[in-house]
Amino acid sequence: MEGVIEGRRVRLLSMEGLPEGWGTRESEGVQVSLEEAAVLVERGLLEVKDGGSALDLPGFLQVCARLSPRFIPRYVVFRNFRERGYAIQPGPLDFRLYPRGSKPGEKATEAYVRALSEREPLEMREVARWLEEAGNVRKRLLLAVVDEEGDTTFYEARWTEPPRRPWRDPPSVVRAQLLPDRGIVWDEAAGKSLHESLFYGRPDRGRLVLSLVEVGHLLGQGFLELQGSNGTPLSLDQFLERAGEVEPHLREKLRLYSDLRGRGLVVRTGYKFGTHFRVYEKYPEPHSKYLAHAVAPDRPLPLGDLSRAVRLAASVRKHLLLACPQGAALRYLEITRVRP
Amino acid sequence: MEGVIEGRRVRLLSMEGLPEGWGTRESEGVQVSLEEAAVLVERGLLEVKDGGSALDLPGFLQVCARLSPRFIPRYVVFRNFRERGYAIQPGPLDFRLYPRGSKPGEKATEAYVRALSEREPLEMREVARWLEEAGNVRKRLLLAVVDEEGDTTFYEARWTEPPRRPWRDPPSVVRAQLLPDRGIVWDEAAGKSLHESLFYGRPDRGRLVLSLVEVGHLLGQGFLELQGSNGTPLSLDQFLERAGEVEPHLREKLRLYSDLRGRGLVVRTGYKFGTHFRVYEKYPEPHSKYLAHAVAPDRPLPLGDLSRAVRLAASVRKHLLLACPQGAALRYLEITRVRP
Repeated sequence: MEGVIEGRRVRLLSMEGLPEGWGTRESEGVQVSLEEAAVLVERGLLEVKDGGSALDLPGFLQVCARLSPRFIPRYVVFRNFRERGYAIQPGPLDFRLYPRGSKPGEKATEAYVRALSEREPLEMREVARWLEEAGNVRKRLLLAVVDEEGDTTFYEARWTEPPRRPWRDPPSVVRAQLLPDRGIVWDEAAGKSLHESLFYGRPDRGRLVLSLVEVGHLLGQGFLELQGSNGTPLSLDQFLERAGEVEPHLREKLRLYSDLRGRGLVVRTGYKFGTHFRVYEKYPEPHSKYLAHAVAPDRPLPLGDLSRAVRLAASVRKHLLLACPQGAALRYLEITRVRP
Repeated sequence: MEGVIEGRRVRLLSMEGLPEGWGTRESEGVQVSLEEAAVLVERGLLEVKDGGSALDLPGFLQVCARLSPRFIPRYVVFRNFRERGYAIQPGPLDFRLYPRGSKPGEKATEAYVRALSEREPLEMREVARWLEEAGNVRKRLLLAVVDEEGDTTFYEARWTEPPRRPWRDPPSVVRAQLLPDRGIVWDEAAGKSLHESLFYGRPDRGRLVLSLVEVGHLLGQGFLELQGSNGTPLSLDQFLERAGEVEPHLREKLRLYSDLRGRGLVVRTGYKFGTHFRVYEKYPEPHSKYLAHAVAPDRPLPLGDLSRAVRLAASVRKHLLLACPQGAALRYLEITRVRP
């Protein structure tokens, strides 16, 4: 076959020998994507002409990389699936993936695939957009991350919903003192009322030490009377302003904490796992079930960080939940490594 | 005992009842640090006067937190060791720690301890400074990180030196093509000469795919003839400028890569572990021995990120090396979790 580059695609001058499921038929003939063209060139099935002479594979890859900044990861991912016998076609995000061994049209698309380079940080609002596109047509979303050596790691991203369990309010309002980075309930009985069945705070020689998110949550719910340094009561806004200087992401963390607590789950710090929180369905259980992290929709997340977080969560057998605000709601993204 | 606050310490008016190993004798009497004073107040052994009336523990903690921004983590760490029967005293970084069960003076200081709040990011040049201070007097350096719930995680930081092994240069200069984010050696024999005993690159259908750091290293060593998009040869500087747009930390990573390669070690991407590289003493072995990450001395490292990296390295039984430039040299910091 011969082809010529047109825009970001290759138009075939003949299509004898084009395998089934490749390219798309347009009124002007058959067009293949740059990724398809590169694999066809590599297999010796296609010659792409550039000003009369045929490009060799190195030359064609150079041209493609110039035409499309995301060509390299797309090409690596497309080729990876094709070599392993998957039917894969250009699609809405990057590709449509069909069940292994099936041909396009024979079975429905199984997943939308987005190819990423490990070097481009990811924004959660992008993932949210891709999930919406895939979810609207009930497809799974796969993220295929190409590392610097050309190896690909696959992740599935999906919305999930932490469970809801019955929960109780604290029996009464409790008085606490605010230190710069924690709250202290000095009255032993009051501390017990928060800790013994509700699992707030950490008992310490008769007093109860509350973290800043616990203080913020209980204060926001009206179960805390908070005293500042000179004994004056503090409102939630005053607390947020003061504690926000100590804890830069306090509002994000507090929103996540309160959402999980409002589901009747017990939430403790996730510091030892490098996430904001660890979350228990029942407490005290020996192991938490979830690791939850508050993410801002537009804060770029380096993919190396994501890789480490997913790997660590898997190694301790916990679900990793990334909590992203979407409008007024908080939505939970679960990202797991998959091996398609 | 009674005491009064003077500067950031408490001067004791009497010292009857002061346990051995607490406080320091000055010409004006005995002074205790704020942390010592807080524990003594808590144990009912000390009354601190503020303008005539004695402060209760909540009031005293408030005053201390105002006097010293790092009081809370210092207090938590000091108290943690004291409660577990360690002799610990104020010292050059924060504390001197003595072997468990011994008294100060009885045995030499075992470690210098620095108390950190999980909320303060760490700069490697600070760790380097602490290590110098501790190392000058042959003490270990412990970092005690207090999380938001008041739990403490301990790390030991030390300089280490990756091993050196015999190594060989590539047998000849090889020609490669630069794509935006990788290099490709198209000649099969040339690719084999780099890969088969030296383990550069990833073989892929007769060609060898090199990562950007591999390209930079081989180019810098004079073993690569690199061609840009239109076939023109590229110098190392031209390569660094071009590839630096694709890979923001390329120079840092390349410096680390070349140092490890220069030791005769085999270096591959650490993407799946969320670090820059994984490092093999012998290759191919099934498991790499080290994870290595290039860090800038002044780039703040969030402690949650460090926690996750240390935990992941431990879970896969690898040594985590943070490579920091110090002057012209590259030094390796190993951070491990310890349970003193």
